[in-house]
Amino acid sequence: MTGKLYGLGVGPGDPELLTLKAHRILTESPVVAYPAPDSGESFARAIVAGHLSPYQLEIPIVVPMRAERFPAAEIYDKAAGEIAGHLDAGHDVAVLCEGDPFFYGSFMYLFERLGQLFPTEIVPGVSSLVASAAALARPLAARNDVLTVIPGPLPDAELEARIKGADTLAIMKVGRHFARIRALIEEMGLTDVAGYCERVSLAEERILPLAGVVEDSAPYFSMILIYKGAEDWIRALPAGKTVHAQ
Amino acid sequence: MTGKLYGLGVGPGDPELLTLKAHRILTESPVVAYPAPDSGESFARAIVAGHLSPYQLEIPIVVPMRAERFPAAEIYDKAAGEIAGHLDAGHDVAVLCEGDPFFYGSFMYLFERLGQLFPTEIVPGVSSLVASAAALARPLAARNDVLTVIPGPLPDAELEARIKGADTLAIMKVGRHFARIRALIEEMGLTDVAGYCERVSLAEERILPLAGVVEDSAPYFSMILIYKGAEDWIRALPAGKTVHAQ
Repeated sequence: MTGKLYGLGVGPGDPELLTLKAHRILTESPVVAYPAPDSGESFARAIVAGHLSPYQLEIPIVVPMRAERFPAAEIYDKAAGEIAGHLDAGHDVAVLCEGDPFFYGSFMYLFERLGQLFPTEIVPGVSSLVASAAALARPLAARNDVLTVIPGPLPDAELEARIKGADTLAIMKVGRHFARIRALIEEMGLTDVAGYCERVSLAEERILPLAGVVEDSAPYFSMILIYKGAEDWIRALPAGKTVHAQ
Repeated sequence: MTGKLYGLGVGPGDPELLTLKAHRILTESPVVAYPAPDSGESFARAIVAGHLSPYQLEIPIVVPMRAERFPAAEIYDKAAGEIAGHLDAGHDVAVLCEGDPFFYGSFMYLFERLGQLFPTEIVPGVSSLVASAAALARPLAARNDVLTVIPGPLPDAELEARIKGADTLAIMKVGRHFARIRALIEEMGLTDVAGYCERVSLAEERILPLAGVVEDSAPYFSMILIYKGAEDWIRALPAGKTVHAQ
């Protein structure tokens, strides 16, 4: 019997936002794989570090953060091969995924390679999208609102068209595109209805109106939410801020 | 000292998709409120029933399911008043929310009434959106995909325009609008790239291509996902189906 492959959503960063299911599968899996940067700690691993045991085999999947080298097919071919070896040997493998595995996650590269070959289960997780709305203290979508999620790396013209056509929208993966995206939002007259979230749900979380961000760059795990026609909300932001850290 | 109000995301249905944080706050809160239908069991309560204790005070918020009577301001005024009484007396109140509190949830009606008056924390949850993608075994959004979330109750013309402008899209709250929405999708030539999810993550979950649904109505907790240009995915659906029930 082969092992089972799990795509395990571990939530946006707060270790407590792990689900009971992900916790169970994590602690029962003899092999745990996760994305890791070429230097420094794996974020996905850090989220669940408190639950790992020295008896589990760990497979860091080292992915260079520089965009021009990502995604690198060889990296995922090699990782998939290694994981397939453990599955063939009858061991379950839990692949840790920041947020949710199927919401802009790199797990898809392993899923493409292994999902049809081995029994596979996706364990959904709390996405940074809903965690950001919680931190901003404003419903992401209510009643008959349409919600649009837009990746920040899109070129300006497409970004502008998408923003124009949307009501409430979230711009994901802002990172090194921050200055360009902020300029575009300013040009479109939407700065006053834009909120900024950085490292949401972590102790170092930053939540503020986009107009209040003084930096010209942002970390990879940052997001801009735009609620058109909601100037009152932005003005209420400091008072309405929820506190995640206990 | 007043108590704290929690909007507690309890996930899409599987009790194991509760987060560790929601579990902690739930078991520590002396008062637990939740939406309930006028007849039958509360879905939100059922999800966490295994963790409730007889020493907790429960406040069912009875909301008639007939759309023409919803939302009823008096119902939420009354519930907010009752909850405020407990908060004033220094007791924390956890309000259970199916999925995520800020993703098309009724918690917003209480949040509008109480969020500025009492210390309030939103605990994000696993939304039915990501749980449906997990069940359909296809990433919701990858790379630079734009994702649009559209409420099913929108009128035909707006629904059509929104579907036309989107790449990958989820139609939420399908329920009694199912026949109308299916006809529209058929007219737009998108049936072959549409998947249908019902009661996702529960034992009675149904996951199938939209073309395979023989009924003319759907339960409230159902969703249609459309992946434009992905005919191959739909054809692979039965084989690729993940199994949630253990």
